[in-house]
Amino acid sequence: MQQERCSSSDRPLDPGCLQARDAERSADRPACAPVDFPVAVVLPAGGSGERVGLPTPKQFCTIFNRPLISYTIQAFERLPWIGTVVVVVSKENHDLMLNIVQKFNHTKVNVVHGGTTRHRSIFNGLQAFCSTSNSLTPKPKVVIIHDAVRPFVEEDLLLKITLAAKEQGASGAIRPLVSTIIATSSEGYLDHSLERAKYRASEMPQGFLYDIIFQAYQRCSEFDFEFGSECLHLALQYCGVNAKLIEGPPTLWKVTYKRDLAAAEAIIKETLSRSACIIAGAEAEAAELAKTLQKNLNMCLHYSEVKLKVGTIPGMQVVRLALDKNRNGLPSTFIKGSSSLGAHFLLGNGGLESKPVRHKMETDVIPCAKESNAEYLSKTQNFIHLSTTGSNFLGVLEMVKHFEDTDHTRLYPVVIVWVQLNMTKQSVDSQKTDELAAFRSLASEVIQGNVLLYGIQIEHTKVPEQWERSVERLTQITVALIRDRNAALTGQLLHV
Amino acid sequence: MQQERCSSSDRPLDPGCLQARDAERSADRPACAPVDFPVAVVLPAGGSGERVGLPTPKQFCTIFNRPLISYTIQAFERLPWIGTVVVVVSKENHDLMLNIVQKFNHTKVNVVHGGTTRHRSIFNGLQAFCSTSNSLTPKPKVVIIHDAVRPFVEEDLLLKITLAAKEQGASGAIRPLVSTIIATSSEGYLDHSLERAKYRASEMPQGFLYDIIFQAYQRCSEFDFEFGSECLHLALQYCGVNAKLIEGPPTLWKVTYKRDLAAAEAIIKETLSRSACIIAGAEAEAAELAKTLQKNLNMCLHYSEVKLKVGTIPGMQVVRLALDKNRNGLPSTFIKGSSSLGAHFLLGNGGLESKPVRHKMETDVIPCAKESNAEYLSKTQNFIHLSTTGSNFLGVLEMVKHFEDTDHTRLYPVVIVWVQLNMTKQSVDSQKTDELAAFRSLASEVIQGNVLLYGIQIEHTKVPEQWERSVERLTQITVALIRDRNAALTGQLLHV
Repeated sequence: MQQERCSSSDRPLDPGCLQARDAERSADRPACAPVDFPVAVVLPAGGSGERVGLPTPKQFCTIFNRPLISYTIQAFERLPWIGTVVVVVSKENHDLMLNIVQKFNHTKVNVVHGGTTRHRSIFNGLQAFCSTSNSLTPKPKVVIIHDAVRPFVEEDLLLKITLAAKEQGASGAIRPLVSTIIATSSEGYLDHSLERAKYRASEMPQGFLYDIIFQAYQRCSEFDFEFGSECLHLALQYCGVNAKLIEGPPTLWKVTYKRDLAAAEAIIKETLSRSACIIAGAEAEAAELAKTLQKNLNMCLHYSEVKLKVGTIPGMQVVRLALDKNRNGLPSTFIKGSSSLGAHFLLGNGGLESKPVRHKMETDVIPCAKESNAEYLSKTQNFIHLSTTGSNFLGVLEMVKHFEDTDHTRLYPVVIVWVQLNMTKQSVDSQKTDELAAFRSLASEVIQGNVLLYGIQIEHTKVPEQWERSVERLTQITVALIRDRNAALTGQLLHV
Repeated sequence: MQQERCSSSDRPLDPGCLQARDAERSADRPACAPVDFPVAVVLPAGGSGERVGLPTPKQFCTIFNRPLISYTIQAFERLPWIGTVVVVVSKENHDLMLNIVQKFNHTKVNVVHGGTTRHRSIFNGLQAFCSTSNSLTPKPKVVIIHDAVRPFVEEDLLLKITLAAKEQGASGAIRPLVSTIIATSSEGYLDHSLERAKYRASEMPQGFLYDIIFQAYQRCSEFDFEFGSECLHLALQYCGVNAKLIEGPPTLWKVTYKRDLAAAEAIIKETLSRSACIIAGAEAEAAELAKTLQKNLNMCLHYSEVKLKVGTIPGMQVVRLALDKNRNGLPSTFIKGSSSLGAHFLLGNGGLESKPVRHKMETDVIPCAKESNAEYLSKTQNFIHLSTTGSNFLGVLEMVKHFEDTDHTRLYPVVIVWVQLNMTKQSVDSQKTDELAAFRSLASEVIQGNVLLYGIQIEHTKVPEQWERSVERLTQITVALIRDRNAALTGQLLHV
């Protein structure tokens, strides 16, 4: 796991949906320093979203019916050592923001009105802590300032920023420059280029001793309020504090353009698809299928070696691949290829071909979705429900009931793949329209509660090779459904 | 169309798959200046892809089974005024690159070996034009230098860069800075921040008079070769040429991190889903369905106004929406919402909820896939084949044959959605396993030729409301299949 994390450098450890597990934390994390002082957050969210090319400010654009800003709030709210999150929005978005807070049950949020510029908004946010009458927002020792459109901020970095701010007065996340920076002449010509190694991109979050940043804002000029962009600069100019700079991960990036929404969605989808729970039922055949499925899911998205055979027949235009069958479980999201000279490249296989991930789905197998298994049900957003009987949706209903009771689908949709194992060939032939209709009607009902229900029928066979192929195909379709979370396909009964 | 393009600022006009249509070109394009001098391209592609977090250099990562670099090459190759494209790769990727050139039929490419640094590689590329024995790479007047990992470069910008290079000696694309740039002290503290308005990010493509840039490389130092990153800088330092800077669109961005691959995929998927062809057959009912489907697809992805009703009942945690039914065709990818105070935000609806696009699918309706309709078949990558008879796949086979003959699927997969319109209720009940098997076997055959085949069964009904709902659902599923291009779901017969 550790190794995988190192290589997948722009995947967040945790977009706020899973509990951070100690074993997964990176080695360079501050040695479990307890934050024994009050920490609050100011989240300016007054942006207009012009650059996204949408009529909607990007912080309110949704992924899985949930506005981006809710993901960002959740990234702070899940941390017990963080107190109030002050969200600064423009007046016209005030009601909208209150509704988001209510719908997604954000308990630490205090919504205040923004100013006409970013700096004025941040200052308004900071002032919320001065009001002595407001016991909801006690004055913090350290305040973290972040962007509403950077939803993937991790606890590691927040800890580092907070502790550095306490010690130095100010701290900020930085990233290496991706492009060379150039100075332009007024006529639009190159004047000079900067030496890349000396500069960094200043990112968010930034941390400050509350008194320092508040003082800086009190002292700063109208010009700063109007045209300034950098809080670190104010702390330096008006309080003489040189901020400690801390390199953050690539996931810190700011959702700026439309394509960034697609990237954010891909990251969330990937994170949601890392685990699943198989409900196997009591039948021996279902238990057997569960075991194979678990094995497949455990390896299905791994890289595997592929030898690229360079075509030698003139005019042959197809790069031929010899799959190393032993190591290649379907569906390979990416197949690592190597040319005869040892170069590597990736070839997609199947509909997942372009998802740039290396990733296995960790699964638990449980016999039923009863109360006693509540622990497993709360661990994941993906469920594969095996059934050997026809249209018996009781197990599905039990699960949906449990999700309702535990508020499990508030933040992320749950996928249930209902797999019907047909023991006799007849059962498919005699599949009735009303069975289909019942399933579809169930799906359209549970989607109201953020549950995406899909069906797959698989025929049991005693021919080992055929059965292996079928289960592989079942794995492939299941993974596709879980990864894509496509609401348009709920209620469909697919066939293997 | 023009308006739509202005607002969707980071969507490329053309990722190389569609012919640029004159009517769509932007107003600020250089007035149809003929490029009457030789222009060539150098494409350094020796990068290691470390930042993507994959063991594969990112230019060889695939989207729809096609390496990113092939998309970039195609962006140049489609332009008649561009001659040779010299691709510079490391020795170990030479065979791989030749295979890519062959598989995707890149006719203008000359593959040469790179050096140990980017500048050495570019110089090697430039030297390919000096070899008098090589008639494939005559010396150009202007050479464009680009990145293999910026696949969405548009003709507009290439023209501007080329003409400015001819006139000024050098030219380069720039973008506004997204982050503040700061100078760091050696101890990791903030030294100062730069005034954002004075600086730009230097991007690619860059253009040069061949003689200028070649001379600059001949004169430059070992230090430049080893540590330099900016060609514009060399032209300035060694030839005294101040490059003309031209602001490019956001789509110029460089695929740097894993998430950028997801973003690139989303852009390609969106572009591929802008049009479709409906093959209606001869039956009156199918023709009628085709008409309704066309109407739905024409509006299905449009924004529509939604009034957000702010919940007033205490404890009510759901943001309620009153859909304006008249303007809201399903499936709305995004529904533009407005709070009672006029704020806008987007609420996703269905599985497409998070695709940040506003986009309708333009459709042609033709009676059959015969030779006489070849023009329509070559215009799009998406086909909706309506059929009122059972498992008659003849029409599908005709189309697949046509695609093979015309090499239509070489660069992008084709989607065929086979819609079976059942005129009697019986037809679903009596659906046989072997019909399903035949369809699935057909799908697994045609996918070898890059054709993704899906099936949808829809029951005809004379109840108008019910029929309308069914066709809406059909639209929704069709759009989802076309947009997602998920290979794992080919061969499935879905039901409406």
